[in-house]
Amino acid sequence: MRLTAFTDYSLRTLLHLGMNRDRLVTIQEIAETHLISKNHLMKVVHQLGLAGYVDSVRGRNGGLRLQREPAEINVGAVIRSTETDFYMAECFDSSSNSCPLSANCHLKHTLAAATSAYLAVLDAQTLDMLLPPGPDKPALAPLTFHRIAVPA
Amino acid sequence: MRLTAFTDYSLRTLLHLGMNRDRLVTIQEIAETHLISKNHLMKVVHQLGLAGYVDSVRGRNGGLRLQREPAEINVGAVIRSTETDFYMAECFDSSSNSCPLSANCHLKHTLAAATSAYLAVLDAQTLDMLLPPGPDKPALAPLTFHRIAVPA
Repeated sequence: MRLTAFTDYSLRTLLHLGMNRDRLVTIQEIAETHLISKNHLMKVVHQLGLAGYVDSVRGRNGGLRLQREPAEINVGAVIRSTETDFYMAECFDSSSNSCPLSANCHLKHTLAAATSAYLAVLDAQTLDMLLPPGPDKPALAPLTFHRIAVPA
Repeated sequence: MRLTAFTDYSLRTLLHLGMNRDRLVTIQEIAETHLISKNHLMKVVHQLGLAGYVDSVRGRNGGLRLQREPAEINVGAVIRSTETDFYMAECFDSSSNSCPLSANCHLKHTLAAATSAYLAVLDAQTLDMLLPPGPDKPALAPLTFHRIAVPA
């Protein structure tokens, strides 16, 4: 079971932009840094633009930047928009399903429940949670413990 | 995101055998019923045999049957044995990972947590739970409610 390369590259593009929010980033830079074909990446960026995650600034000094704050980019929503489907078995696609067991079988229900559990984990994450601490995201303060006075 | 066709056919083979436990089933029958190539199915059955799920009885009246009780066939274990991997992004395969973000990025951890949640749902299911009620598996008794005497 894998996510598509398209999703992998989409997430990497968002992470790369999230780690470089102080400047515009070119497609060329992302392609070279991640060893991804520029053609493939242009499709990824186009789709991320349509979905409202990435802005393209045109011109000689143009480039890409996040269209929203990292805390407003939900990882589950990104993956739902970049994956073609979540068809775990033939019976998920009612237009082509020919499995004669479908009517009496609980497999679809079980696989759908597993997929929901998968997406629920991602729905609880936003891009900022995936980024390292930085100027925009200070490291978590170390936990401090206070002595609690216990009433006598 | 999809499971492989190999997993789909493996699960269907187990379901088909689980629904026909009173007799031996031929590969030919499963291939015709599910419109799966017989060659592909032979690989599936070979793998299910190695994993201890299916027995092949040789001879003119031979065929396939489950090697264990359906309640002893865990769906999560089947899928772990039939899927090639659960590499959700390039960073899951340390032998080929070239992503320069890996060291500073929490994506792998997040996708691994989502995959664990997916498998946990399947680990809680056994083949008998996917099968329709039958001679081996009576329908669940309807829930009955008893009036509980509340002490005055």
